[in-house]
Amino acid sequence: MNDTFLKACRGEKTDYTPIWMMRQAGRYLPEYQKIRGKVSFLELCKNPELCVEVTLQPIDRLNMDAAILFSDILIPMQAMGATLEFHEGKGPIFPQTVRSKKELDKLSVPDPIEKTGFVMETIRLLRKELKVPLIGFAGAPFTCATYLIEGGSSKVFWETKKMMYTNPALFHELMEKITKTTSRYLLAQAEAGAQALQLFDSWAGILAPGDFEEFALPYATKILTELRQTGVPLIYFANNGATLLDLSVTTGADVIGLDWRINIGDAIRRVGKKAVQGNIDPFALLLPKEALRQRIKRLLADAEGAHGHIFNLGHGIHQFTPPDQAKFAVDCVHELSSRQS
Amino acid sequence: MNDTFLKACRGEKTDYTPIWMMRQAGRYLPEYQKIRGKVSFLELCKNPELCVEVTLQPIDRLNMDAAILFSDILIPMQAMGATLEFHEGKGPIFPQTVRSKKELDKLSVPDPIEKTGFVMETIRLLRKELKVPLIGFAGAPFTCATYLIEGGSSKVFWETKKMMYTNPALFHELMEKITKTTSRYLLAQAEAGAQALQLFDSWAGILAPGDFEEFALPYATKILTELRQTGVPLIYFANNGATLLDLSVTTGADVIGLDWRINIGDAIRRVGKKAVQGNIDPFALLLPKEALRQRIKRLLADAEGAHGHIFNLGHGIHQFTPPDQAKFAVDCVHELSSRQS
Repeated sequence: MNDTFLKACRGEKTDYTPIWMMRQAGRYLPEYQKIRGKVSFLELCKNPELCVEVTLQPIDRLNMDAAILFSDILIPMQAMGATLEFHEGKGPIFPQTVRSKKELDKLSVPDPIEKTGFVMETIRLLRKELKVPLIGFAGAPFTCATYLIEGGSSKVFWETKKMMYTNPALFHELMEKITKTTSRYLLAQAEAGAQALQLFDSWAGILAPGDFEEFALPYATKILTELRQTGVPLIYFANNGATLLDLSVTTGADVIGLDWRINIGDAIRRVGKKAVQGNIDPFALLLPKEALRQRIKRLLADAEGAHGHIFNLGHGIHQFTPPDQAKFAVDCVHELSSRQS
Repeated sequence: MNDTFLKACRGEKTDYTPIWMMRQAGRYLPEYQKIRGKVSFLELCKNPELCVEVTLQPIDRLNMDAAILFSDILIPMQAMGATLEFHEGKGPIFPQTVRSKKELDKLSVPDPIEKTGFVMETIRLLRKELKVPLIGFAGAPFTCATYLIEGGSSKVFWETKKMMYTNPALFHELMEKITKTTSRYLLAQAEAGAQALQLFDSWAGILAPGDFEEFALPYATKILTELRQTGVPLIYFANNGATLLDLSVTTGADVIGLDWRINIGDAIRRVGKKAVQGNIDPFALLLPKEALRQRIKRLLADAEGAHGHIFNLGHGIHQFTPPDQAKFAVDCVHELSSRQS
């Protein structure tokens, strides 16, 4: 069992810097595309055997130090009763938006085993196969709320902010409901065998720090506090969250995820005694090999003072990334960070 | 002549905090919509009389302390020879993208008077009418380059980064050409009567700090250095640029524009002896009046230590903003910041 990732999460010394990549089980891999050629995205998410297969695909091919459960952050929103659709080439869509008390009341706090048992089954199956730790995950409540309110992804999040600013009580009620759902969902993942849990706050970065503190942070904190009992390392990733770092630390996460927009050394100075995860620009995987190697070397040097560093991209790997470039990056990280003499 | 805005740009004491709003001449105003009902966006941009009319619309109605020339950051790209189209309800489109040396060679560095004389004429006409200072502007080279390379706006800027990372020589050559064009264009605006100049780097925030320093910053700096001879205050606004602040200061701008994602007090501590412009979330204009007033009050308090503060939104005003809410915000800023006793 390779536990380098778990050690780094806990700020313990490791022989080298562990690496995994957000969205590492995904469209840039031809073997993933092959499976997706047979089933829709949602069918895939609900089929434990296939989820296991795609979760494992990048582990061997790329030599990753951690696996992340293949699923989608919106699966628990569907379990709450929201109608979720994925159309090829587009983002997720919720045809029935949640913008009123009546619409909110239609959503329930589901039993995670009953409604998302396929996720727990995937985790159980994966644990039998994996020789690296398995990361479970969920979307953070703010991020999930934006999808429900906007009816999908958005450019400016007009409806979300309109609700926050003109009907904060309704917004908070929605957040409470998502928070309860997410806590139970992640507790069940840990119960099923997830060895670390990551909360993805993909859209937190659209908020002014004061709004983040009022409308998003308390809910992420509530979940992470609840999850403390599981004993597994907890990761909080606020995308585009450079100005939210000081606040993110207060969630109680063990590891702070960083997107590529911040120098990792600056981030480390700000997060104090927390491990960090990140943060190369995913598109930098396009660099010619020698330049990519130099960039990785610089990042590792900048991260020297970290209280634990898990190498990752600053965002999900892009579908057009050549897999051999991703593999080269993994090898570089392993080689350049080796502390064995 | 109300010169409060210009004083604040120079870090001089003012009787109150001046305010203007990015995109203040725009779709949220019914009188603007009326004009747009008659002409297309590009026709409007090229008609000095109508540009004057829409530039003036928010000044009287909202009591702004500065006017900003009505135009578009992509006008000089069209002057370089790029085919620019605006389709109703969509962003700008360049059907012929610039991704090769051959495509780049088709672009020229135009004479700003010959190719964009309508902009200079608008400025001359406006100066006769205005009792507040007139801000001229252009897009920063990096931002303009993304539109040419992507063929419009983008979500992930794959093509832009692909060029940066795999063909940096071509990317830099494109940047050089845009930089020369932009310098001449803004010099001509100052010559025509613009009393301050703002460089909008709307997409700088997609870059890691190191990439910003290598691929974007040198060109913005070159332009602002060239513009120093005009004697007018220079404003640099890198949208989503919280992690680029220390670098932005090195452009030599007098004023650093801030988007809403950063606490203005934190930003002020980082920019040192520079004036700042910003930075309320544009959607906060939806807040109930008392809450909006409180938010403005807090922002003004946070900006207390600024070496000059121009109140603004952290981004352009949204088309669905009620004009009376914008007016209320302007009145609040004026009243709450009054230093006359």
